[in-house]
Amino acid sequence: MKIIIVGATGTMGKYLSDVLGKEHEIVRVARTGADIDTDIYSTESIGNMFRAVGPFDALISTAGPTFVGPWEKLNDQTFRQGVEGKMMGQVNLVLIGQKYINPKGSFTLISGALTHEPQVNFANASAANGAIDGFVRAASIELTDGVRINAVSPTVIEDSPQYFPFFPGEVPTTMKQLEYGFRKSIFGRVTGQVIKP
Amino acid sequence: MKIIIVGATGTMGKYLSDVLGKEHEIVRVARTGADIDTDIYSTESIGNMFRAVGPFDALISTAGPTFVGPWEKLNDQTFRQGVEGKMMGQVNLVLIGQKYINPKGSFTLISGALTHEPQVNFANASAANGAIDGFVRAASIELTDGVRINAVSPTVIEDSPQYFPFFPGEVPTTMKQLEYGFRKSIFGRVTGQVIKP
Ligand SMILES: NC(=O)c1ccc[n+]([C@@H]2O[C@H](COP(=O)([O-])OP(=O)(O)OC[C@H]3O[C@@H](n4cnc5c(N)ncnc54)[C@H](OP(=O)(O)O)[C@@H]3O)[C@@H](O)[C@H]2O)c1
Ligand SMILES: NC(=O)c1ccc[n+]([C@@H]2O[C@H](COP(=O)([O-])OP(=O)(O)OC[C@H]3O[C@@H](n4cnc5c(N)ncnc54)[C@H](OP(=O)(O)O)[C@@H]3O)[C@@H](O)[C@H]2O)c1
Repeated sequence: MKIIIVGATGTMGKYLSDVLGKEHEIVRVARTGADIDTDIYSTESIGNMFRAVGPFDALISTAGPTFVGPWEKLNDQTFRQGVEGKMMGQVNLVLIGQKYINPKGSFTLISGALTHEPQVNFANASAANGAIDGFVRAASIELTDGVRINAVSPTVIEDSPQYFPFFPGEVPTTMKQLEYGFRKSIFGRVTGQVIKP
Repeated sequence: MKIIIVGATGTMGKYLSDVLGKEHEIVRVARTGADIDTDIYSTESIGNMFRAVGPFDALISTAGPTFVGPWEKLNDQTFRQGVEGKMMGQVNLVLIGQKYINPKGSFTLISGALTHEPQVNFANASAANGAIDGFVRAASIELTDGVRINAVSPTVIEDSPQYFPFFPGEVPTTMKQLEYGFRKSIFGRVTGQVIKP
């Protein structure tokens, strides 16, 4: 399979590139230092990336910038980080990418437990995640040619110990669990699901 | 109680203004033809509205424009209707309104069953609703002075028969059920809930 990983230079993306790269052709995407430098804030940049890649079988995204910080700093401007990044960035990967994906291909977007399990400082991510979850369910009944779409929704992950203090009460998602969440979406048959790995 | 109803000239808003107006002081808000004309697409217009109203006890919003139409027409531009309207319009009502609301006041936003029960043509609303649901849960643990926040999430409502053909399998929410959903949020003690009326 030819698999695009958007966010391939990050904590999740690097791990997934390594494990999936053992069996599949991986196209690594991020703003800098990847196979194809792309900014998901820009629809033009996304379009260029898909034209450069050509037909593909799966796209997984682990790129989802949001505003993290005190509630007092949350306003129309700061909220846009999650709106333009984790929400519209990923939505546009699908709306544009559907023209390039092979029949029976799959999109897998990154969400997070914050949709249902809020934590102080992360309201912007809760909203962006909720948008991705709703979008994935709706897109699954619209996409054609057997193309599927799911979201993976972990809580704080094992390899991000710097976040542990901000997630009291959350048992970290192991990297293996995260990987299996993505595997379920890419290699399984489900669609429209928010997978809790 | 002094209750602001944003979207007061619409199907839901008119009904709620009438029933709640029997016992409470209602400030009716919409773009045109209300007590205070306001456009929730504009943070400036929202700020002007709150300054004109002064302190209040509850805000309920039934204003949530989204793009409704065929999947093929969904793109970065059309998606913005729901992003700027139902999502950021309502988020900004809270982020700005929290400076004006009385202690123990409440915000109640409009969401919808499409978050979990998608229908063809409504992917933009599914995403915006999901964002509102996630935001409400997160804001509930951040707001101070006992201020509460909930969303009401009906399916297609009794007084919108023109939408029935687009919601196969959905038993319409009656106007009484809708009203009681809002009553639970305004007059009850719950916070951070997505109320299915
Ligand atoms: N880490 C956790 O514990 C955790 C738990 C649950 C959910 N999540 C979510 O999972 C996602 C990834 O987390 P992570 O810890 O792996 O993040 P990370 O280490 O910061 O990696 C983010 C990746 O996305 C890329 N990226 C960021 N903005 C981009 C843009 N505008 N265009 C293209 N690529 C962009 C980054 O590369 P460049 O900066 O070079 O572009 C990087 O490759 C986030 O959305 C986060 O909210 C994380
Ligand atoms: N109707 C249903 O069956 C149903 C079911 C579930 C959820 N919902 C959701 O409930 C919400 C309201 O539905 P409805 O049927 O009552 O809608 P509606 O009849 O179209 O009324 C919308 C109200 O919001 C106001 N509004 C629209 N855009 C605005 C803006 N930018 N700034 C300020 N006010 C604005 C409208 O007045 P102006 O245009 O003059 O501003 C009007 O008062 C929508 O978000 C819809 O998605 C509806």
